[in-house]
Amino acid sequence: MLVHKCAFEIPELLLECGRRLKNVRVGYETYGELNEARDNAILICHYFTGSSHAAGRYKESDPEPGYWESLIGPGKAIDTDRFFVLSVDSLCNLNSKHPQVITTGPRSIDPSTGRPYGASFPVVTIGDFVEVQMRLCSSLGLPQLYAVAGPSMGALQALEWTARYPEFVGRAICAISAGLKLEPYLIAQLNTWCAPIRLDPNFKNGNYADDEEPREGLAQALKLVTLDALHPTGIRRLFARRWADREKNPLQALDHFYSVENALEQTATDRAKFADANSFLRIARAVQLFSIEERKERLRARYLFLPASSDILMFPSYSENAVADLRKLGLEVESFTIEGDGGHLDGLNAIGQAADVVRKFLA
Amino acid sequence: MLVHKCAFEIPELLLECGRRLKNVRVGYETYGELNEARDNAILICHYFTGSSHAAGRYKESDPEPGYWESLIGPGKAIDTDRFFVLSVDSLCNLNSKHPQVITTGPRSIDPSTGRPYGASFPVVTIGDFVEVQMRLCSSLGLPQLYAVAGPSMGALQALEWTARYPEFVGRAICAISAGLKLEPYLIAQLNTWCAPIRLDPNFKNGNYADDEEPREGLAQALKLVTLDALHPTGIRRLFARRWADREKNPLQALDHFYSVENALEQTATDRAKFADANSFLRIARAVQLFSIEERKERLRARYLFLPASSDILMFPSYSENAVADLRKLGLEVESFTIEGDGGHLDGLNAIGQAADVVRKFLA
Repeated sequence: MLVHKCAFEIPELLLECGRRLKNVRVGYETYGELNEARDNAILICHYFTGSSHAAGRYKESDPEPGYWESLIGPGKAIDTDRFFVLSVDSLCNLNSKHPQVITTGPRSIDPSTGRPYGASFPVVTIGDFVEVQMRLCSSLGLPQLYAVAGPSMGALQALEWTARYPEFVGRAICAISAGLKLEPYLIAQLNTWCAPIRLDPNFKNGNYADDEEPREGLAQALKLVTLDALHPTGIRRLFARRWADREKNPLQALDHFYSVENALEQTATDRAKFADANSFLRIARAVQLFSIEERKERLRARYLFLPASSDILMFPSYSENAVADLRKLGLEVESFTIEGDGGHLDGLNAIGQAADVVRKFLA
Repeated sequence: MLVHKCAFEIPELLLECGRRLKNVRVGYETYGELNEARDNAILICHYFTGSSHAAGRYKESDPEPGYWESLIGPGKAIDTDRFFVLSVDSLCNLNSKHPQVITTGPRSIDPSTGRPYGASFPVVTIGDFVEVQMRLCSSLGLPQLYAVAGPSMGALQALEWTARYPEFVGRAICAISAGLKLEPYLIAQLNTWCAPIRLDPNFKNGNYADDEEPREGLAQALKLVTLDALHPTGIRRLFARRWADREKNPLQALDHFYSVENALEQTATDRAKFADANSFLRIARAVQLFSIEERKERLRARYLFLPASSDILMFPSYSENAVADLRKLGLEVESFTIEGDGGHLDGLNAIGQAADVVRKFLA
């Protein structure tokens, strides 16, 4: 499946914090066709470090397809022969330097100054992400969404949709979700993710130049994200207690590392290349702010939760609590656990396990 | 029980890395009396951020007793009416600035230069900690240890004892342990703990002055240690989604925090006051280096493992794997799980649950 990125613009967006953002521009991808009744749209929302590239390839030579390729496509669980699938780059997307990401964030030009927002970019919320998506739905003339789905931060957006526009969304698929609100433990964990950025001498309270970024702090932040999204058993299969360099015994010097340390460092450094530190801090805050608990009474969608058994970032118990809470409200809620040892990432890499359940849920 | 700190000196210690350390001096505490046969000694080894203060108070007005007070004392599971209990400050102890900690580490004077070791202090190992303890045992004329016990890094020392001196140690009690070797996942996690220190511009590759330390990096490192040792359910009981300051909505600015963030920051900053960054990096490496797997055939002690059900730092499965491995060797191994929602820290705070099991194990 070959796909391409489109751009969508909003002249002005009133944010939840009260500020107005001008010339908002985000990327999106679509898979499948909108039917005549325009009632076959499914919206996919992406995770913290993700983008709208949920399925397909931009060109045949792309080494990897979109992140939910095993779920989305012709004849698949989210069947593009039947559904019109829509996926949107979030406002303030982390990977604002990625050539295939279109977003408005701290690196965008503030029309009122002609210079990048940088530290002056406002706090954004999961609700703001949803508002951008809603504007896009309106511009496409969608009277409703058949379903909204996403993993991790994507699940927060799916839940937010069902609280904010209960008449508009029929079904929500919440993979590896944090539940109906961010746990205090997760709020604290996001704080620890942000700490290396704030510590980096280049950070300068967010007022850094493009060529003097807090690159090292951002890499260390992404190191924490990467490790927290994995699981010891999966890591054990990949790494023994090997040294990174067989000539450099970790017993002899502090800068002699184990191979797992070097691999993690390398992954984090690679991930940092397309990412922006100011954006990272704002997405972390958006996640911290998430809660639909005080709006529970408004909910009326059907829900499918897909926790991963080895997830030690967004524990299966978070989903179980959400399932119990929603059932108490008399809502129809299903749940299926992805088994594996890949941790939180099983919500991406092992999502294929849930294909039949998702297909039935969308029937 | 009133206790006091003693000091023990070793003129020269050959470290596992090959370097020789002169004028090694560590603190220790004892509870109970050595019997005539000198065969009633139990050694307690402390955790990463701990010290030899395992039980009792230095003076009656001390707000808190030692960390295993619920286990150690007259008539308790580790009965000081019967046993002579010995507890030693580790080499390179993290809290080298604490008035009740005596240790030799990066802040100690290098006799060959007359100045503090700083960055030149060698890599130390769990085995080196044990060697210091063995010298103390020898100086006290102990022909053997009835048992050696400890939580977390203390359990690593207990296991190391049984591999290094199998004839000397009868029993090992391993609370909230990492198993027979450090998992690659934990090796990586320790790397992330160290990252904020390395990022702090004051760190200067370990060559910092006493008045210009990487205090902020050390605090962020201890923030990770603190959070990783807790559990979401326990945190949920203590913190709701309250703001740190009711006038400062986190929606309005990135430096408006939630109360759980502020509490964690405060705890970490307090813990950093007595701690030293160079020592932190070396203890982290000592833990990373730990493995007795290649010496399994030497083992002959009896073991008691005490995992904590909600431990998400040193998972119960690590202890379960160790129990299975040791039983395969034909060794006598018991296990008891501490129930709770306090995470890794339940190995300290809820250790009282294991009192009867420990008493029986020592019978």
